[in-house]
Amino acid sequence: MPTLASNFKAEISTLIANKDSAGLKAKLAPWLPSDVAPILSELPIEQLAMLFRGCTKELAAATFSYLEHNAKHKLLKTLTQPQAAALLNELPADDRTTFLNELPLELAMQMLGLLTPEERKVAQDLLAYPEHSVGRMMTLDYVAVRPDWTVREALDYIRTHGYDRETLNMVYVTDESGHLLDDIRVRRFLLAEFDTPVRALMDGNFASISPNDDREKALVVFRKYDRAALPVVDTDSKIIGIVTADDMLDVAAEEATEDIQKLGGSEALDEPYTTIALTKMVKKRASWLVVLFLGEMLTATAMSYFEDELAKAIVLSLFIPLVISSGGNAGSQAATLVIRALALGEFRLRDWWKIMRRELAAGLMLGLILGTIGFLRIIIWSRFSHIYDPSPFRVATTVGAALVGIVLWGSLMGSMLPLLLKKLGFDPATSSAPFVATLVDVTGLIIYFTVALFIML
Amino acid sequence: MPTLASNFKAEISTLIANKDSAGLKAKLAPWLPSDVAPILSELPIEQLAMLFRGCTKELAAATFSYLEHNAKHKLLKTLTQPQAAALLNELPADDRTTFLNELPLELAMQMLGLLTPEERKVAQDLLAYPEHSVGRMMTLDYVAVRPDWTVREALDYIRTHGYDRETLNMVYVTDESGHLLDDIRVRRFLLAEFDTPVRALMDGNFASISPNDDREKALVVFRKYDRAALPVVDTDSKIIGIVTADDMLDVAAEEATEDIQKLGGSEALDEPYTTIALTKMVKKRASWLVVLFLGEMLTATAMSYFEDELAKAIVLSLFIPLVISSGGNAGSQAATLVIRALALGEFRLRDWWKIMRRELAAGLMLGLILGTIGFLRIIIWSRFSHIYDPSPFRVATTVGAALVGIVLWGSLMGSMLPLLLKKLGFDPATSSAPFVATLVDVTGLIIYFTVALFIML
Repeated sequence: MPTLASNFKAEISTLIANKDSAGLKAKLAPWLPSDVAPILSELPIEQLAMLFRGCTKELAAATFSYLEHNAKHKLLKTLTQPQAAALLNELPADDRTTFLNELPLELAMQMLGLLTPEERKVAQDLLAYPEHSVGRMMTLDYVAVRPDWTVREALDYIRTHGYDRETLNMVYVTDESGHLLDDIRVRRFLLAEFDTPVRALMDGNFASISPNDDREKALVVFRKYDRAALPVVDTDSKIIGIVTADDMLDVAAEEATEDIQKLGGSEALDEPYTTIALTKMVKKRASWLVVLFLGEMLTATAMSYFEDELAKAIVLSLFIPLVISSGGNAGSQAATLVIRALALGEFRLRDWWKIMRRELAAGLMLGLILGTIGFLRIIIWSRFSHIYDPSPFRVATTVGAALVGIVLWGSLMGSMLPLLLKKLGFDPATSSAPFVATLVDVTGLIIYFTVALFIML
Repeated sequence: MPTLASNFKAEISTLIANKDSAGLKAKLAPWLPSDVAPILSELPIEQLAMLFRGCTKELAAATFSYLEHNAKHKLLKTLTQPQAAALLNELPADDRTTFLNELPLELAMQMLGLLTPEERKVAQDLLAYPEHSVGRMMTLDYVAVRPDWTVREALDYIRTHGYDRETLNMVYVTDESGHLLDDIRVRRFLLAEFDTPVRALMDGNFASISPNDDREKALVVFRKYDRAALPVVDTDSKIIGIVTADDMLDVAAEEATEDIQKLGGSEALDEPYTTIALTKMVKKRASWLVVLFLGEMLTATAMSYFEDELAKAIVLSLFIPLVISSGGNAGSQAATLVIRALALGEFRLRDWWKIMRRELAAGLMLGLILGTIGFLRIIIWSRFSHIYDPSPFRVATTVGAALVGIVLWGSLMGSMLPLLLKKLGFDPATSSAPFVATLVDVTGLIIYFTVALFIML
């Protein structure tokens, strides 16, 4: 694979300025659209428009899909209406859906108007499915054959009806009304004798997804069946499109990014970290930070109730960060593990008591480990320091016992909160590590001071 | 898609006990291996062995790949040597690599011994690549043709050399020595006239990966090029295998799970949360919790330096959890965003100063927002309460100013630490949210008390 020279952009720029379309064609030919698109995205918009007017519509469509969103947007506004129409009509249906989807509604309707009646119908159908649904990602470029055809007839059909864009890895078998009967790898057609009926290649085994399925659910199905493409069928079992594994890779990345960003205690950015506008990013981060901050204010309230006890034993305040952060850490761990297991479809909500039993056991063990370390640390240091006087043993017992309780409590809260959120219809990833930590901070303080009241005061 | 009846396992069990192999075949026929494997995994091992001895070797191999690891392991030990050998030789090369890889070395060598000389060579080649490398995931079942063949010759070759397992979505064009010249979608062969030379279908545009690439890097390449499969080439540009997009979906899920679990402050579990042994899980979680706990102990140390100041102004202690957790939350956010952007290949290490500049600005804005809220909260509450006396304004200013500093500091630490870890060759995801929070807790306390010293004392 050759690499793009650093002066590539400048050379393209010069060729465009000279209107040297032969030179441009020669310059672009050895490159994949996905390689050149980021560089073309950086060109001044008039140059980009000149380029798109000059090149073949196939190249224009292939490159357009990979351009940055802003470049796409500006480019379409710069092109004349017939030029824009030609480009939009040439785009693969799923890429076009994604693009239209990101436009302001008014502009999207305008773009829809540029499509041919057929393509407009396709786009409207795809746009009618809910956001993040399988329907939005599907493409209509699949090939379906009938069971009573011969392999030769099927291959002839594929040859004449071969669409131009998506993978043709699977051939679908349907009856006259379009009900999906089977999927057959295209290689089986290649390996079979010409006179074999399609029926003989069928095994009746196939997996399918629904257009209303959430794309995260589709991801679980894809991983389970290891397919390069899955057929999308309506409630009547009729095939209405396919979704391909390479598109699912983008979905997998986006879904993981969303979950990770939420787990990290911010809203999902929905744009790359490196290119999102600073104020937009600050807004998305500030909203959660403020919520957490307001929640964390309750720690001050909780502590003010124990002000008299604190005044009597300042030594207690030394361990506040240690004790509550341990609860928060245990809670973050449990929340993260449970949220990821939920996203991977490892268990169902009704198994919540299994999770609770596990976390009760794990939380108790983890609490005992940390409690023991905390206890020993204070006992040992009291030999060398007088800050724990008059009763280092009581301080050590208070901190140790509080740790057991708080870590256990943190693990329970961290594991049950995502399940509760899911049950209530929210995204479980919203119960981010910082969110759980904040909850556990407040309740942890109450546990700590209550234990202290019993043991020390 | 029909659903498995709940008594399916019992029925299979009875059929096996009755040695009714015709009944078994009929019972299993309508199901995909990935559907029945989890249920078969639950059968007693003797029954599973009887089943595998009875069924066709194709079905056995297809089902084996989807069995739980423990069931695989036990099953192979129960089968006679020739039976195990037949099964192993039938497995797809990449599934076999994964399986051998999970076995203790001695057992893996024994299994290697069961393979035919050809298959053994394939397995050894694949195992020689580093863990999590592309080499470990590749399969050798691709078809390569020569540029001077006609489409008819190529199709005939595909028909006679069609391997049996992996997707045949792409056909590769090589010269006599195996140098990769191009990849062509199989559909283009189907759509072309029989007499067209292969050369005429070539455009010389193809993407490839190296067997030593980390699979996470391969993921970035897959997402960039939207391919169903990518060819793997050695340093001499010779094709040595392919990797398919459906396998990459599993990689994407595993890599995201690893990152998410590390971000949540535990070691990657490497097994599903729901099935990992409790003690094993506690061990993986305890190690990080203990490290964080030991780090967090420094907060007690830091606070003991300020004990006199604390005694003079107990009111300061009320805001300790609020102030330090805000720094921790800001740090978690920044760390998570940067770690994810790194994993997605959004920027390179040498751009660290761009990130730093962004986080300086974002951290300052976020700090000002939280600082203002904190300041106002104390001023307003001081009208209704006397706990901030004698000088609520000073308390408010201390908390507000400390918040600005700590949130800014947390954002900087959170964003720079992953970059530092990556630079040093560690996995950036190790700088988990709790890890950053702990670091920021300790330094945050110092910032808080230093500000307090200037303003209040």
